[in-house]
Amino acid sequence: MTHHETSALAAALKSALPDGAVLCDAAAVGPYAHDDAEWADYATPAAVVLATSVEDVVATVRIAGEHAAPVVPRGAGTGLSGGANAMPGAVVLSLERMTRILGIDTAERFAVVEAGVLNDDLRRRVAADGLWYPPDPASQAISTIGGNVATNAGGLCCVKYGVTRDYVLGMTVVLADGTVARLGRTTAKGVTGYDLTGLLVGSEGTLGIIVDVTVKLRPLGGREDRAIVGWFPSLAAAGEAVAAVSAAGIVPAALELIDSTCLRAVADWQGWTLPEGAAALLLAKVDEPGGTGEALAQQVAGLFEAAGGTHVERAFAPDEVDRLFLARRLAYPALERLGPVLTEDVCVPRSAVPTMLARIEAIAAGADVVIANIAHAGDGNLHPLIIAPEGDDNAKARAKAAFDRIVDECRALGGTVTGEHGVGLLKLPGAAAELDPAALAMHRAIKDALDPRGLLNPGKAFPAAPLPSGRRPSEG
Amino acid sequence: MTHHETSALAAALKSALPDGAVLCDAAAVGPYAHDDAEWADYATPAAVVLATSVEDVVATVRIAGEHAAPVVPRGAGTGLSGGANAMPGAVVLSLERMTRILGIDTAERFAVVEAGVLNDDLRRRVAADGLWYPPDPASQAISTIGGNVATNAGGLCCVKYGVTRDYVLGMTVVLADGTVARLGRTTAKGVTGYDLTGLLVGSEGTLGIIVDVTVKLRPLGGREDRAIVGWFPSLAAAGEAVAAVSAAGIVPAALELIDSTCLRAVADWQGWTLPEGAAALLLAKVDEPGGTGEALAQQVAGLFEAAGGTHVERAFAPDEVDRLFLARRLAYPALERLGPVLTEDVCVPRSAVPTMLARIEAIAAGADVVIANIAHAGDGNLHPLIIAPEGDDNAKARAKAAFDRIVDECRALGGTVTGEHGVGLLKLPGAAAELDPAALAMHRAIKDALDPRGLLNPGKAFPAAPLPSGRRPSEG
Repeated sequence: MTHHETSALAAALKSALPDGAVLCDAAAVGPYAHDDAEWADYATPAAVVLATSVEDVVATVRIAGEHAAPVVPRGAGTGLSGGANAMPGAVVLSLERMTRILGIDTAERFAVVEAGVLNDDLRRRVAADGLWYPPDPASQAISTIGGNVATNAGGLCCVKYGVTRDYVLGMTVVLADGTVARLGRTTAKGVTGYDLTGLLVGSEGTLGIIVDVTVKLRPLGGREDRAIVGWFPSLAAAGEAVAAVSAAGIVPAALELIDSTCLRAVADWQGWTLPEGAAALLLAKVDEPGGTGEALAQQVAGLFEAAGGTHVERAFAPDEVDRLFLARRLAYPALERLGPVLTEDVCVPRSAVPTMLARIEAIAAGADVVIANIAHAGDGNLHPLIIAPEGDDNAKARAKAAFDRIVDECRALGGTVTGEHGVGLLKLPGAAAELDPAALAMHRAIKDALDPRGLLNPGKAFPAAPLPSGRRPSEG
Repeated sequence: MTHHETSALAAALKSALPDGAVLCDAAAVGPYAHDDAEWADYATPAAVVLATSVEDVVATVRIAGEHAAPVVPRGAGTGLSGGANAMPGAVVLSLERMTRILGIDTAERFAVVEAGVLNDDLRRRVAADGLWYPPDPASQAISTIGGNVATNAGGLCCVKYGVTRDYVLGMTVVLADGTVARLGRTTAKGVTGYDLTGLLVGSEGTLGIIVDVTVKLRPLGGREDRAIVGWFPSLAAAGEAVAAVSAAGIVPAALELIDSTCLRAVADWQGWTLPEGAAALLLAKVDEPGGTGEALAQQVAGLFEAAGGTHVERAFAPDEVDRLFLARRLAYPALERLGPVLTEDVCVPRSAVPTMLARIEAIAAGADVVIANIAHAGDGNLHPLIIAPEGDDNAKARAKAAFDRIVDECRALGGTVTGEHGVGLLKLPGAAAELDPAALAMHRAIKDALDPRGLLNPGKAFPAAPLPSGRRPSEG
């Protein structure tokens, strides 16, 4: 796109949109050029639109189309895969100012909210009506529902309560030609036509721009959190505890693992002393009320101890539960103090968690990089956090190589290359290796059918082509 | 299709497929010409293929394509919307002989099964490993998993445990050109690419032919069924009880309603005496174990009584639970004794159930037909059962008109025209009224992208065009 073309696009947007809705100068658009993924490519966009209405979104998509400019939809930019990163000449379309809660139906237990509503704001608002929106990505305080839906965000409680997809009943979406489509329903059940709502969930802005979402809610009450934590002398022992909980038929409300690298970073920061020989911490939560919950918490504690867990503690009082989960909350910020964190996201069979962690340890040693691990162990969803000191290009290259090796090993164990963060840009090679070529062809056919000019977030969410056979994603 | 063309198609199929796999004579193909939907159009197919392998399915699709013949996939033919009905010249492709359970992973809790496995057979097989496949359509003893998935079947327990869609992790599907595509994953979470698995669930064979399915399982244990039943003097009172249970934040494992027309049919058949003035029976189940379950059952019973319920009974012993639910199981066969039953399937907001039932009563009176009601009341999913005496063409026409009127009223109350049976043929006019024209255009675009020649179950699942504005579906 030439400078002249960029100016014409910006002028057209400014004339159609409210005052202050269009940003064009480099300093203003800079913060909108990329999301929170470390080292994913991005370019300075031609313009940023801060939409406040469906009409703004329609106008932006239409004008971008007239100028053949790609449109990159964006929530709060908290993504970790580069899904919201701009390409040259793009219009970044931010939904962050669309923050209205359009309705809450307490009898039917659903809410209709604009895409820019923060996850925590929705959660607080519906709690006032005795309702609960379960999906709890770690970013919940700062990420938007629209972004959560576009990436099908996970979280801690999804081991028991499911992911974002499981709570989306319908949506309004602006299509590539500017058409507004209303998808889904508000009833508890419904099978009228294809599940287009589900197709849009996790499509990372490549099929349409989600402007509002109808989410299913649960009753807030009836749950009582009980936390159970234990320290383990090895990753294998922690893995055995996870397997034992699962084999006992217990579905915990959270089952998190933190490895020793992560624990040391937290301890160094907070001045804690870790138990001697602690290689991993397991944090479980059960939320059945009363005697049932108490019995389950006891059972989980017993299984932790049987697997070699030490210092096993239980808590029921909310502040004690919070205290036991503190290490989990501090893990990511503790690591960020050590340097830029490249956040990996892979999902392996639950039983393969210890093996996968051992392989990650070997990859870290081989690549001479620091890799700390937090994991939604109950789901097999691992987040190796790869750290390279600021400004060390060589370390950065080694970190990137380690990232690709982890993806390879996850695939070798029957895993999937992204458990909850999305493909974005960072997982395109991994997705090329994972997806059946026939499935990939279906992706392209659907994308071409709904966005024939390829204007909506092009080059994201799925790879353009499968890897040539015999090539590994790390060579891609 | 001329007789010559039909013969050529049959000959090609016979030469490519195993002995006995291809049926051509009218007597043999007759039972495969339609499903269990009353009065939906069908034609005698050109041939029926009884596939026993993926290769059989691929060969059938390829040969049908070479002869430009539509392919109608079919499980057990228990559908109630005409989704498996044949059109002239079609090849009906039955998956009922593909009954292998390909694998069960007890640690990860999933099973891989061929499309023709019966729902109950899967249920029994995984129970032996301490696992549970929840989706429980009323047809579970005779319907196949492939059919359940193709229609996104519901059931009684979905008010708490979700529908078939919620249990499908992946599948193998044969596409319109005979390509075999592997979709989905086996891990607990995963967001690699579009949710094509979800798109195929409920697509009624129009996008691909599902040959095997990977289903998520739950632990079998940890539940204890408690039944609570009560008789109500009016549908409104029963509706109040349903609303009260929901408002209390209770999510029952089943919450079924049977109206007096239905109850009388059962009572006449079984020689029961109904309580004086009973207009409806509510049957609830809670499955929390121990004291929690006992307290919930007591609470539900109290709410039933507070809403005017009489003869409220509770049961915990399994045979007593079964006894209390007996009227629900006998309802459909009791009505079938009275004549052909046109089974309606609409879903309204939970709170609109009493209003909808009152409107159905008025429709029955106006059309001079018998309409009995069973309802998954906890989901707002109603099954008005419209009965016309065998051979009475006038009554049949009135029944069909009542069917359309019920769809209209459901829409007027904010409902959806099919809660769990699918669009098939019977709900095409209703779907045309319900679906946003932009959403309908998306359906067509996706269908054209994946099946450009329109060979897979053409004319099913979604209407060819929206209704001209101002026209009602009953005039369609």
